[in-house]
Amino acid sequence: MEAMKPYKKDFSYSYALGAFPTVELLRARPDAVHGVYIHSTFEDTSGIRELCAELGVQVYEGDRAIARVSPKENVYVVGVFGKYEDALCGERPHVVLVNPGDMGNLGNIMRTAAAFGFEDIALIEPCADRFAPRTVRASMGAVFRVRTHRYASFDEYRSEFPDHTVYTFMLTGARPLGRSVEGLGCRYSLVFGNEATGLPDEYAGYGTSILIEQSPAVDSLNLTIAAGIGMYIFGQSGMEAENEDSHRI
Amino acid sequence: MEAMKPYKKDFSYSYALGAFPTVELLRARPDAVHGVYIHSTFEDTSGIRELCAELGVQVYEGDRAIARVSPKENVYVVGVFGKYEDALCGERPHVVLVNPGDMGNLGNIMRTAAAFGFEDIALIEPCADRFAPRTVRASMGAVFRVRTHRYASFDEYRSEFPDHTVYTFMLTGARPLGRSVEGLGCRYSLVFGNEATGLPDEYAGYGTSILIEQSPAVDSLNLTIAAGIGMYIFGQSGMEAENEDSHRI
Repeated sequence: MEAMKPYKKDFSYSYALGAFPTVELLRARPDAVHGVYIHSTFEDTSGIRELCAELGVQVYEGDRAIARVSPKENVYVVGVFGKYEDALCGERPHVVLVNPGDMGNLGNIMRTAAAFGFEDIALIEPCADRFAPRTVRASMGAVFRVRTHRYASFDEYRSEFPDHTVYTFMLTGARPLGRSVEGLGCRYSLVFGNEATGLPDEYAGYGTSILIEQSPAVDSLNLTIAAGIGMYIFGQSGMEAENEDSHRI
Repeated sequence: MEAMKPYKKDFSYSYALGAFPTVELLRARPDAVHGVYIHSTFEDTSGIRELCAELGVQVYEGDRAIARVSPKENVYVVGVFGKYEDALCGERPHVVLVNPGDMGNLGNIMRTAAAFGFEDIALIEPCADRFAPRTVRASMGAVFRVRTHRYASFDEYRSEFPDHTVYTFMLTGARPLGRSVEGLGCRYSLVFGNEATGLPDEYAGYGTSILIEQSPAVDSLNLTIAAGIGMYIFGQSGMEAENEDSHRI
């Protein structure tokens, strides 16, 4: 087992803080788990000990170790996991986040993505640490349910998935979101920019630029809200298409 | 002018921290402004001094006063404003927030509401402080563009607006959001619950309960995301209805 030290980005492992994210970790990525720390006062209503026993995961008691890695929060369970690499699925839609800067936002978007059936997330560097405890916590453990892959540039991502239709969400978008989602296959990419700067102008040339229709009275939408709305609309449309396909068969 | 002390909830005044929210304050609620503090090193690219002069608002320099009310942030402009009461408009759709607990979420939802044309927000107590500097900041000043009114209970709100059709957003919602928005007039209420607990079961009986369709793999959506999606779908539908009406005329 690794030493339980306050998390740093260059560690090869990280922590899921709290029972809920730890259960998600155990269920979705059992092979990545190194061990689970449980506080001596923890009332195990979520069956974590049982789940660990089933999976052959080592359980430790260590109140001081838990306090060391989560000094500011009331945390009773810590899942220790090794960082891993995923490949994105080429036959599924992708969410592409260009330079997301905030761990809370990144986690939140992963949670929403998982909720709307987007299981593949490309991260264009520089980007917030996808495995930091804060990201994991904000994702409510959804980080373990999606596949993520980092790319040095958008072009590198594009060259791996040249057949994905690109939709870029921009304040200067050409097509209103409500009219964007016809004839969707499963190979498309929803691209969102950085919290403060959005997507640079040149992204308009990569595909269809999408505008979320809004009042001119407000500057812009919060990134996580914009991404949530975009994923909902596209995700629903995909589900309807799948239902139609199954009716046909 | 009031003393520039760290904000407390029982103050009759509050602070807009930062140039952007202060400009929103000046534009939307000039009568509420008591004065504007500007840091001696502030480069005024947003024309705040000019706007204050136009409106007859007193400008103060006071680096220490600014530091006292915003100890943790790089703030160069502080707008001081008196708290005020709004009445909601009976001929417009409402957003009703039942016991929102987090100031960041409350501000964020107000920002999204303004973006999608919802200008009337009912707050059912207990609820987060709508005028706290953190709420104002999270709203990016949109708090000044919407009308807010607090109610002791949902029943009190209902008795004031008995003709509004109620849509409650619930994890156990009966009607999928995508099929909810036909024949909307302008008198309806979108009701969202608390971050942690959602809406209590009895809210299903108040009107049509709405489900945001999502994967069973994820626990629930973040409140601000759910509210953003709901307001987008209903807001778009309202705009389409208005456009159809104007075509008819």
